[in-house]
Amino acid sequence: MNLDHTQILALEKYYRINLINQAAGLRSAHLIGTQNTDGKTNLAIFNSVTHIGANPPCLGIILRPLSVRRDTYNNIRATKYFTINQVPHDLVSEAHHTSAKYPSEISEFDKTKFTPTYVDDFPSPFVQESKIQIGLSYLEEHEIKVNGTRLIIGQIEKLILPDEAVEDTGHINHDLLQSTVVSGLDSYYSSKKVKREDYAKPKDVQ
Amino acid sequence: MNLDHTQILALEKYYRINLINQAAGLRSAHLIGTQNTDGKTNLAIFNSVTHIGANPPCLGIILRPLSVRRDTYNNIRATKYFTINQVPHDLVSEAHHTSAKYPSEISEFDKTKFTPTYVDDFPSPFVQESKIQIGLSYLEEHEIKVNGTRLIIGQIEKLILPDEAVEDTGHINHDLLQSTVVSGLDSYYSSKKVKREDYAKPKDVQ
Repeated sequence: MNLDHTQILALEKYYRINLINQAAGLRSAHLIGTQNTDGKTNLAIFNSVTHIGANPPCLGIILRPLSVRRDTYNNIRATKYFTINQVPHDLVSEAHHTSAKYPSEISEFDKTKFTPTYVDDFPSPFVQESKIQIGLSYLEEHEIKVNGTRLIIGQIEKLILPDEAVEDTGHINHDLLQSTVVSGLDSYYSSKKVKREDYAKPKDVQ
Repeated sequence: MNLDHTQILALEKYYRINLINQAAGLRSAHLIGTQNTDGKTNLAIFNSVTHIGANPPCLGIILRPLSVRRDTYNNIRATKYFTINQVPHDLVSEAHHTSAKYPSEISEFDKTKFTPTYVDDFPSPFVQESKIQIGLSYLEEHEIKVNGTRLIIGQIEKLILPDEAVEDTGHINHDLLQSTVVSGLDSYYSSKKVKREDYAKPKDVQ
């Protein structure tokens, strides 16, 4: 298959959505937890969490303000806080169900097995069943002109994970945590560590 | 482990880099191919490719202009084109080696087993050994204020992958293609499909 831009645009809509989403490769599945100013919680699955930097520690997410995840965006803007939570393999179907289009007044926490939990004084709900829980404060956002999606940058204010999953070097054992990856919007994969590479040094440079 | 922002900043530097990079989860490893205006090629490994949209088909990458990947950034800006190439499991060590700090006049194609290949009239080199080859044109960029990293958006101009890896629905069989995922900068994982979920519909809404 060798498609150019025009041929891609001519594809049937859902075929194109699947193909382009999945061509981008596999990404971690995460649950984003928020609440509105009245304390109503929301939980949504995302596959767009990206590392931005370690000092200060920041992550980014891509979201579509006009899609089902509008609640997430509105809540982040209103409260300035959100959580990013890992998805263990055994809860994939529950995590996927958060993509169903519930009205804003219904919390996905009430329609899935996930339990909202509050840690110290952090103002957004974490997912109790997640093995990595990250609390972030809203830092900045960028509107992507081509299609109106937004990149939201959050600063890590809380990082919670099991001690036994963190090695002396700071590496995280995702096999132990059974972290889930996803291709596109619906195809979930497990992962298994193959190799840790050494810091790469140039071969003989003339 | 329950760390707040101040405690994260107090961590030893490389421990913090590993911990924060890996807490963000697993992401596909990709090789980005570029060349400068003299035709000198460059190849660099990235873990930050993100789906931006399917219509028009666009992907994003996060990069640090002042890191080892400066050649990639300069070449994209100068030529307005780049390629994103999948990494099969059996070439992980070769792909990782592109992160070694070679001077600009040395091409990583000459220091690894990867072969530059040109398809039709697309002006940047694809990686012949990659099972998914994507050619993009530069569309826009956003500087992330907190640390100067940049989000580059490219429009997909070419999409090349084996017919047998694409299902009738547009879903891609990453098991067949042996796509690699990576945690942080050095920990490579294989993946295996667990389940394709149906489109999620709300349970009884009162």
